Amino acid sequence: MEEKRTRVNIGIIGFGTVGSGTVKVLWEQKFEIERALGVTVEVVKIVDKDWIRSRSIVIPPSLRGEDPAEILNDDSIDIVVEAIGGLEPAFSIVKEALERGKTVVTPNKELIAKKGKELLQVALQSGSELFFEGSVGGGIPIIHALKEQLLGDDIEEIFGIVNGTTNFILSEMSLKGVSYQEALREAQRLGYAEPVPTMDVEGFDAAYKIAILASLSFRTQVDVDQVYREGITALLPQDIDFARELGYVIKLLAIAKKDKNQLELRVHPVLLPSWHSLASVNGVENAIFVKSRTRNLTFIGPGAGGEATGSAIVGDIIEAIRNLKYSCRGRAGYNFTANFPVKPMKEVVNQYCVRILAYDRPGVLGKIAAEFGACGVSLSAVKQPVSVPDQLTHIYFLTHHTPESQLQLALEHIRKLSVVSDAFAIRVESGS
Amino acid sequence: MEEKRTRVNIGIIGFGTVGSGTVKVLWEQKFEIERALGVTVEVVKIVDKDWIRSRSIVIPPSLRGEDPAEILNDDSIDIVVEAIGGLEPAFSIVKEALERGKTVVTPNKELIAKKGKELLQVALQSGSELFFEGSVGGGIPIIHALKEQLLGDDIEEIFGIVNGTTNFILSEMSLKGVSYQEALREAQRLGYAEPVPTMDVEGFDAAYKIAILASLSFRTQVDVDQVYREGITALLPQDIDFARELGYVIKLLAIAKKDKNQLELRVHPVLLPSWHSLASVNGVENAIFVKSRTRNLTFIGPGAGGEATGSAIVGDIIEAIRNLKYSCRGRAGYNFTANFPVKPMKEVVNQYCVRILAYDRPGVLGKIAAEFGACGVSLSAVKQPVSVPDQLTHIYFLTHHTPESQLQLALEHIRKLSVVSDAFAIRVESGS
Repeated sequence: MEEKRTRVNIGIIGFGTVGSGTVKVLWEQKFEIERALGVTVEVVKIVDKDWIRSRSIVIPPSLRGEDPAEILNDDSIDIVVEAIGGLEPAFSIVKEALERGKTVVTPNKELIAKKGKELLQVALQSGSELFFEGSVGGGIPIIHALKEQLLGDDIEEIFGIVNGTTNFILSEMSLKGVSYQEALREAQRLGYAEPVPTMDVEGFDAAYKIAILASLSFRTQVDVDQVYREGITALLPQDIDFARELGYVIKLLAIAKKDKNQLELRVHPVLLPSWHSLASVNGVENAIFVKSRTRNLTFIGPGAGGEATGSAIVGDIIEAIRNLKYSCRGRAGYNFTANFPVKPMKEVVNQYCVRILAYDRPGVLGKIAAEFGACGVSLSAVKQPVSVPDQLTHIYFLTHHTPESQLQLALEHIRKLSVVSDAFAIRVESGS
Repeated sequence: MEEKRTRVNIGIIGFGTVGSGTVKVLWEQKFEIERALGVTVEVVKIVDKDWIRSRSIVIPPSLRGEDPAEILNDDSIDIVVEAIGGLEPAFSIVKEALERGKTVVTPNKELIAKKGKELLQVALQSGSELFFEGSVGGGIPIIHALKEQLLGDDIEEIFGIVNGTTNFILSEMSLKGVSYQEALREAQRLGYAEPVPTMDVEGFDAAYKIAILASLSFRTQVDVDQVYREGITALLPQDIDFARELGYVIKLLAIAKKDKNQLELRVHPVLLPSWHSLASVNGVENAIFVKSRTRNLTFIGPGAGGEATGSAIVGDIIEAIRNLKYSCRGRAGYNFTANFPVKPMKEVVNQYCVRILAYDRPGVLGKIAAEFGACGVSLSAVKQPVSVPDQLTHIYFLTHHTPESQLQLALEHIRKLSVVSDAFAIRVESGS
């Protein structure tokens, strides 16, 4: 019988916002955590390439390192926190740490979305463990809930606001009536958006996260390339106004649904009913909605931030320590035992809000409506504002449920009409 | 080295709504749960006094029993689900099961609130385990979150809508403008309220639940008798209207806060800002808000219901099975290592909405305002509706922050005024 652990050593690789947030939370809560777990918890090494830039926390020189090998080669280190981000060198470092039997905690969504299955396999073979609570929803404990309390649930849908940058931009557009460009600039000014915001505004970040959530919810290893992805750059303030008139807000949702034995996987803006628990989640907050056969659950919390994500990492460290102490690593393993194929996007059925830029001329509405009808798309609402004859104006349509293929065909035909300059569709999420 | 479990036997004691909901979820998810855990999971005995009444699920006669001893004395049964409710015989049964080394899962809030500490001690001594996710928030996995992912958080506040009956009544009053009595009758008609609704409408049920949440959040064994408790029976539709005008909704909240080294523990109606994530939680839904030093989290979900609570119980069963399989029972034990005293209610500081029933006579407002001022209560808003001279009318006041003792003294003086018939206060929860 192995003797129970009385001390656990932690190494941190990458000391930016998240790495320093983690150390800060660990140190501030050290007494409480140690008392609760009955184990001494020490950060023994922190590795970063750059010790010049200033941080919110001061690290004694004896703990500082510059080479990940200082942690990987140190057999006294039980738990490695990977807080570098991106695919490499994070992947090689995490893989080696797991091979050496170390428990790894990482909030790296790209790493988990692309290499999660492989890394979990490595962990299984070496008897180590991999935790990644912080990879989705920052400080929201959704991964843990899916692994533990919701494991027995028959989950039908999981969708969420998982990107704070785009939610901030959409909230600004909605609350202040500003354009996408103005809202983006404000987000950049506040540090919520990168100078090159593509990863966020085009939905790549959200696609990583829904791939992770879907894999856990449906026990199927989802390939992130199978996630349909559409960003928020084409949205207009008028879209938000039209949505509001009909009782909706516009949100960028990451969506995974099981329909019979196929998965829908998609990231795109939606009209969400304003009564939905996710509709009032504004700013950089994140939220995740889970619908199972027996319950609808909503989790709301911070999507990013060093200490919020640090708290998620510390939550994982606590779980890791308990498993080390009780020699039960692997007790809450992942089981990707199902293998649901992904439904082709053209077969996905939605309601749509369609915005058409057309000339205000006699018969225009009839021509557009005829094209919808010819493609089998029936309409539930239309709004043509008072406009200037012969000038371009936005006309809005709300369709009934229709397969994506039919809607896209209708848009194609409508765009070819001489009186039409553009046609753009936003999907409607009925919200359960 | 003990051989790893390949089979776990479960006994269910009490086969009402929750017991049958649990068995239904277990059976419907049996294949998935077994595949995920690698263990055969069998319900081998279900005990109830009454096998005549109809249920949503049919149980083969071979599984039926009438005496809890059939489960307690059966050494092949690893996990006991207590779904009787109330203090006795539940307490004696759970205690004996734990003493015999069985893992117990129970959603019994009264049992846990009153006897949780004692039962956890029994479990610790016998090496068994006690789980009670379903005891608070029905299907919301808040207990598990507090035990695991949030264990390292420095929690400052936890409050929630933890009683579906009262939330339904308040939602009806708010959405339909009906009186408390009318809303109660509707709740009773729909089966949401008992014929004698005292446990719900006077806040006893919510007090049990906040005692449990506070104990876990602050690592202090809270005595349920220390929870200040006030129900919803005195609320008027006009209160809701006044609140709405100021941007608030009225909710019955169960509140626990740490202020320096004292705990505030209270259940009472509050004015909650309409922007708060709990403000739009309507009907029988429950929701819990946690504010820690690093993150604000909201959990929303079903507060009751056989299958929703059954799913919470199944979540506990899964955790129990993992701990049996990996021989790590006790890994996520509870640590009531802190001992914060409860702050006397008179020292609690709040804003208040005060409703005064007074005669519309010259100088009334001045007299009332003078009494507030004399007790050091300053006012932030007043509303006196157009009324009939010399008739009774409701005047509303919103105070600034003031200790409970001063407010109560002011009310006492105001009630003594000859022009005043009644004075009633509702606390304001700023929502962090």
